[in-house]
Amino acid sequence: MRGLLVGRFQPFHRGHLEVVRKIRAARPREPLILVVGSAQESFTRANPLTAGERLELIDRCLSEAHLSEVSAVPLPDIQRHAQWAAYVVSMVPAFGRVYTNNPLTRLLFERAGFEVEAPELVERERFEGTHVRALLESGGAWHELVPPAGVRFLEELGLAQRLRLLGEGDAAPEGAAGA
Amino acid sequence: MRGLLVGRFQPFHRGHLEVVRKIRAARPREPLILVVGSAQESFTRANPLTAGERLELIDRCLSEAHLSEVSAVPLPDIQRHAQWAAYVVSMVPAFGRVYTNNPLTRLLFERAGFEVEAPELVERERFEGTHVRALLESGGAWHELVPPAGVRFLEELGLAQRLRLLGEGDAAPEGAAGA
Amino acid sequence: MRGLLVGRFQPFHRGHLEVVRKIRAARPREPLILVVGSAQESFTRANPLTAGERLELIDRCLSEAHLSEVSAVPLPDIQRHAQWAAYVVSMVPAFGRVYTNNPLTRLLFERAGFEVEAPELVERERFEGTHVRALLESGGAWHELVPPAGVRFLEELGLAQRLRLLGEGDAAPEGAAGA
Amino acid sequence: MRGLLVGRFQPFHRGHLEVVRKIRAARPREPLILVVGSAQESFTRANPLTAGERLELIDRCLSEAHLSEVSAVPLPDIQRHAQWAAYVVSMVPAFGRVYTNNPLTRLLFERAGFEVEAPELVERERFEGTHVRALLESGGAWHELVPPAGVRFLEELGLAQRLRLLGEGDAAPEGAAGA
Amino acid sequence: MRGLLVGRFQPFHRGHLEVVRKIRAARPREPLILVVGSAQESFTRANPLTAGERLELIDRCLSEAHLSEVSAVPLPDIQRHAQWAAYVVSMVPAFGRVYTNNPLTRLLFERAGFEVEAPELVERERFEGTHVRALLESGGAWHELVPPAGVRFLEELGLAQRLRLLGEGDAAPEGAAGA
Amino acid sequence: MRGLLVGRFQPFHRGHLEVVRKIRAARPREPLILVVGSAQESFTRANPLTAGERLELIDRCLSEAHLSEVSAVPLPDIQRHAQWAAYVVSMVPAFGRVYTNNPLTRLLFERAGFEVEAPELVERERFEGTHVRALLESGGAWHELVPPAGVRFLEELGLAQRLRLLGEGDAAPEGAAGA
Repeated sequence: MRGLLVGRFQPFHRGHLEVVRKIRAARPREPLILVVGSAQESFTRANPLTAGERLELIDRCLSEAHLSEVSAVPLPDIQRHAQWAAYVVSMVPAFGRVYTNNPLTRLLFERAGFEVEAPELVERERFEGTHVRALLESGGAWHELVPPAGVRFLEELGLAQRLRLLGEGDAAPEGAAGA
Repeated sequence: MRGLLVGRFQPFHRGHLEVVRKIRAARPREPLILVVGSAQESFTRANPLTAGERLELIDRCLSEAHLSEVSAVPLPDIQRHAQWAAYVVSMVPAFGRVYTNNPLTRLLFERAGFEVEAPELVERERFEGTHVRALLESGGAWHELVPPAGVRFLEELGLAQRLRLLGEGDAAPEGAAGA
Repeated sequence: MRGLLVGRFQPFHRGHLEVVRKIRAARPREPLILVVGSAQESFTRANPLTAGERLELIDRCLSEAHLSEVSAVPLPDIQRHAQWAAYVVSMVPAFGRVYTNNPLTRLLFERAGFEVEAPELVERERFEGTHVRALLESGGAWHELVPPAGVRFLEELGLAQRLRLLGEGDAAPEGAAGA
Repeated sequence: MRGLLVGRFQPFHRGHLEVVRKIRAARPREPLILVVGSAQESFTRANPLTAGERLELIDRCLSEAHLSEVSAVPLPDIQRHAQWAAYVVSMVPAFGRVYTNNPLTRLLFERAGFEVEAPELVERERFEGTHVRALLESGGAWHELVPPAGVRFLEELGLAQRLRLLGEGDAAPEGAAGA
Repeated sequence: MRGLLVGRFQPFHRGHLEVVRKIRAARPREPLILVVGSAQESFTRANPLTAGERLELIDRCLSEAHLSEVSAVPLPDIQRHAQWAAYVVSMVPAFGRVYTNNPLTRLLFERAGFEVEAPELVERERFEGTHVRALLESGGAWHELVPPAGVRFLEELGLAQRLRLLGEGDAAPEGAAGA
Repeated sequence: MRGLLVGRFQPFHRGHLEVVRKIRAARPREPLILVVGSAQESFTRANPLTAGERLELIDRCLSEAHLSEVSAVPLPDIQRHAQWAAYVVSMVPAFGRVYTNNPLTRLLFERAGFEVEAPELVERERFEGTHVRALLESGGAWHELVPPAGVRFLEELGLAQRLRLLGEGDAAPEGAAGA
């Protein structure tokens, strides 16, 4: 039986890594699948990274941490909650257990007959995507919130600069790209 | 000639029932169609019920009230106002009159050549979806705002609990389901 | 427990009516839901009627036949079989039994845990949508294949003429509408 | 009052040009809008050119022919015939007359209240998109079927080579791009 | 080489006209394409005009100003920033230079290899879509912000009245059209 | 630099495995990404397996063959060839080389600036998806065309039976599921 952990991973940070590590340690014989949600989103303040960049980021961080039996699958949104569990089932290898702290994710998977567990979060306010993105945009101390391999990759990508640009965009005149 | 009444019915409440009753009384020879809008939405705070649940809720409330010649049709959004009237026309039996208090609905149907009437609303602030959902979530006195058959059905569904869960979701970490 | 019967009903014909009659007779205490599939399709040779026209056609034929406790729900395609059962569940009132002679429909609902039965078909080759549409287009004896109330409605709509026009369209130059 | 001519223009050829010329000559005070349908399609045998390439092709051919008061608007398909006329209305400047030899286009616009005329076609079998594309793919005498400015542009684009490649693609192993 | 200017043009105003005039004056040999973004939107407060109305508005204003070699192309949103530059490329004639003050538009086109320039804006706060729409809705002095031909066209359309209606809609009960 | 191999993998067979093996042997320092195309398709004769089942099938076959540094990413179709290369880029980790025998895939990636190579195919007619599916459906000798771990997994799934059911479906009456 595999386990499933859903997130947007914008970006993958040390809080995610700790959750993965604990799940793997508690159940070493259950491979873990990370579902990279909102895969169609990128180049916005809330979702700055593409799905491909997030897959690569996750891969580098997991390799560095010597975590095996963990794979990641990008999942574009379908915008229909009532079909969401069936959609996830059709897009990833068979799984039996779902790890989530999100009440809606819990509700939808429980209704679909899955066992749901809440992973223990570490310093939740600090290790939280919105906070990490805010530090990246403002030039704050984001380095300590992301695993070293992730820091290097996000610097290669110029994520801090990308976020600052997107922040300006919100104040820019009409006619924005894409939407 | 049939009449048409558009709503999201999240949930169907006594205000809706009164509007239906008055329309049926005023024009007993015109069947009435309830268009259940945003049919693709469910399991959110603004749209907690699925379209199927809303159809069943409406059916039970209308039966209890002995209102006949009223049918309900679910309608997923198309997100394009300019085609909306043509879309409704293609999805429901032929109708001639539209009942609405929404200025946009009025505008779009009038541009498409339909006769539009504003149904008289009863205690509009009380009998209003947002208010009913807020009472459900907070444990308030929502029972008096919904017809008895509807109260029983919403309790079977556990709608109050569902709304409380969805309310927590808004405060939960990233990686939410579906969107 | 309700029963569910899925079809495109292009058009609703006496074969459908017989299936409905038998299901209602066999289980008079189970309301029946007709799912009007491919609801977004219309004005093609395979799908000449809009969903609204099909709802009205079904309603007239069922009234004439004094069949009660039967409702119809239009359902646009989602093009994703793996989510299809969950989609149907979310769009219609709760049901427990599915009537179908289609192996795929059977497969998908059985995988989703529903009881599936094959309704006995009457003179299947004669009472078959493709055949009825071909007769309508060619000016053949389609009247005997459709219930009387349906014949009157399809003549009001000019369905035979519509099908002949659409047939010409297939031989017409490029630049066709809609697609 | 403007006129409207719908096509896919894959590619724009001398048959199209003649139709445009006649319409402009017959009604010099009515600007003409060319709707470039299936705008989302490209790089297939039936739709080799992008919408942008088709706009540029049309522009060059019309300039060469000194035809003014003709504009072109790309229109992605919506796959819903019943809304198609309303969709076109919302996407182009106001028009009153539609030119078409396609029975479905005629049907949909007449139902929407527009005046529809059939333009006289010149040597319809020769000046026909499928035929022009077949000649391009097979290395046949397509040059005489396209206006000179169009020939130059299609050669710049390498359309003949593109079509030959796409033709091979149909015989190639699975895993094709895009679909 | 053509230039490209992206906007929603809700509505096209004198600020847009000045930008177009300056670009045309600076590079008289480069035709300019106006991309009319969010083309699928209409009848909302932020996007009151249809794409077709915007094309006609732009056409009238450019004619009045004797600006030639400027064309406009409507572009529905695709909601995927990572593909947006490729999407624009496929939908408009070939271009080489992009004019924008929007950092995201700049970022996406630069990543796709285009040269991007920031056009100088004139009295940016005054000549700004949100401001023009607010004046239209409130009955303020919007006439001086729109070219004369645009004023006449927007009055024909009754845009001020449309915006007031849509403003009421925001305060209206649930069950709104289209979304 | 990573390599990219696009397919639908319906199912993954020994021909695919040989291609992967040769690519990995030729360039052991370049990780390989398998793009699992048409990920939204399942339960049809041409696409019987879900994306999740294909991911699991690939994973088992690669493990058995001790092939490392190969990952698989599911990719739903976007139906727009002109944006397809940009779409792939956004959904997978950075890659530089594309392996394909499909002329369209080659064309689209070359236009996007990628290096494209044609992998040598082994007994192409035998090791071909359509052929494997036909043998599965007819009860033929498909076992020798799929790696042993794949045979076991496809038997667990009952793929042969699924394909036989779907084959019957094509001969079944109207009203099919999902489409």
